[in-house]
Amino acid sequence: MNRNTKTIGVIGAGAWGTALAQAFATPERPVLIWARETEVVESINGASENTLFLPGVSLDPMIAATSDLAALRECAVLLLVTPAQYVRPTLHALKPHLRPGVPVVNCAKGIEIGTGKLMTDIAAEILPDTPAAILTGPTFAAEIARGLPSAVTVAINDAGAAQVIRDTLIGRTLRPYLSDDVVGTQVGGAVKNVIAIACGIVYGLKLGESAKAALMTRGLAEMARLAESMGGRRETLLGLCGVGDLVLTCSSMQSRNFSLGVALAEGRTLEQIMAERNSVAEGVHTAKALMDMAGARNIDMPISAAVHRCVSGDRDVGRIVAELLERPLKPENA
Amino acid sequence: MNRNTKTIGVIGAGAWGTALAQAFATPERPVLIWARETEVVESINGASENTLFLPGVSLDPMIAATSDLAALRECAVLLLVTPAQYVRPTLHALKPHLRPGVPVVNCAKGIEIGTGKLMTDIAAEILPDTPAAILTGPTFAAEIARGLPSAVTVAINDAGAAQVIRDTLIGRTLRPYLSDDVVGTQVGGAVKNVIAIACGIVYGLKLGESAKAALMTRGLAEMARLAESMGGRRETLLGLCGVGDLVLTCSSMQSRNFSLGVALAEGRTLEQIMAERNSVAEGVHTAKALMDMAGARNIDMPISAAVHRCVSGDRDVGRIVAELLERPLKPENA
Repeated sequence: MNRNTKTIGVIGAGAWGTALAQAFATPERPVLIWARETEVVESINGASENTLFLPGVSLDPMIAATSDLAALRECAVLLLVTPAQYVRPTLHALKPHLRPGVPVVNCAKGIEIGTGKLMTDIAAEILPDTPAAILTGPTFAAEIARGLPSAVTVAINDAGAAQVIRDTLIGRTLRPYLSDDVVGTQVGGAVKNVIAIACGIVYGLKLGESAKAALMTRGLAEMARLAESMGGRRETLLGLCGVGDLVLTCSSMQSRNFSLGVALAEGRTLEQIMAERNSVAEGVHTAKALMDMAGARNIDMPISAAVHRCVSGDRDVGRIVAELLERPLKPENA
Repeated sequence: MNRNTKTIGVIGAGAWGTALAQAFATPERPVLIWARETEVVESINGASENTLFLPGVSLDPMIAATSDLAALRECAVLLLVTPAQYVRPTLHALKPHLRPGVPVVNCAKGIEIGTGKLMTDIAAEILPDTPAAILTGPTFAAEIARGLPSAVTVAINDAGAAQVIRDTLIGRTLRPYLSDDVVGTQVGGAVKNVIAIACGIVYGLKLGESAKAALMTRGLAEMARLAESMGGRRETLLGLCGVGDLVLTCSSMQSRNFSLGVALAEGRTLEQIMAERNSVAEGVHTAKALMDMAGARNIDMPISAAVHRCVSGDRDVGRIVAELLERPLKPENA
């Protein structure tokens, strides 16, 4: 591989990393995907399939795998596709292998526990000379991997790097829309997981589709308030990274956060639910981070607060959500 | 009934009018509902049930019915709950029976065919001295009638009338949020019916939930563009009247517009579909009106245009929607 081929590097070979590789691979743009597990590397290189995390999908022949981060050095763009809480250690591991100026596109959604930092803030701290972008939007990995159409927001506030990304990430069925609001974009992707838990609770309590739609809308207002307080733009949340992702996550049992809310409504505890799953619902972490952030910025985030109570051991989920739906009047969009 | 009791008048006793009566009736606030059909008047007054349009729901004893528009004269607030295309003749019929200053809250969603006028524009033309408001949001009549919670946007740009409405429309489970953006609010309620047809087509073609979420988001951008061009505010569409209503309408076979889209995707024609229904899908009318409005204002509304083609006899629904999902890149929120 050389620089002229514009290889795309993908760090993380879970379902979403593999789906992104599949979405962007073409004869002219090979994808090199880094996996921690030798089994995954062998499966992708030997059989063009990720048997562990995306079984049943025949991968593009231009996708190769490696377990060596140094092999990503010649890539034109790097997609970082690890869970949000692993972004910091992964960036530290990646640092010695980065060429200057190569954009790193973070594809995780969430806020770092403890620091309350956005993914691009972590990147700026560890890799100050690397352009940091965000890719986020309404995407189920299984659908994108099968070639079904969707669109994502790619946000970066570096015009040169934006051009490189635009010229490289050209999906046949996954369309990137560029934005320069890195903050608003990430707030959308993080907060929606918390709102999805609330919507799952409303669904589980059989409060109706109207109530769920109203709650999603009020959740969007929470997102917008937080984004604005952090320097983002309210209207960014009208886009794929806000409304689009919220709609998808709050409407499907395919979403881990939504289904967690349904289970909470059925009276199960977080511990019981987690014991049955091998994957975490990111919204549980995010709800805690949001409480700290909302407190520090003096922002009203009632839905996030309610979710935080529900995942922190308060069993009276029905009462908490009923109170939420009966809050007093105030002007819309406030 | 006298002025002190703050009776609410409801004009139109379909499912939605009856549900609104049920949502706002309390011992202190009786509701007088006008129905064209004698059968409905007798059923409500005799058995506290609207057997024709909302069977099975036991109505509040403070709801009475009349077939005489003159009986609404003493009401403090009037809710107009007819289909959009009947608003004009109904306002003409109501005019001789109106007290000055009593707000008329329009609850229809749509645009007048032929004139391209919003509901409040029609009201301003026929009743220039009457404050005209709009009530809209994510509500399924059957859910609201059963007392399930939701919230609506009530928009009016007359502060005094807004206060009267706020003091009168106090639902136990249906919460009004006030707005002064009458234009943006109505554009949301009208355009969402068209986007719902498109989403129904995507669902019917099995293009996936990600594609549907992306299309809803791009539809929201169309709404926002049109609203802005007409003097409304983009951020209004972030609210219940925009996102909230869009989410509900695009996610459920309960929506006539969504289910129309599904039927179109199955290869049936508009004529065949309409022959099996006793109710019209408002989005069919709205799509046509939007084409005229978008043309006159030079606004890009690709989803509405695609829907208009699909309901105007172009049978190649799959190709039309595929083209829509493959449109070239442009900045988000443009």
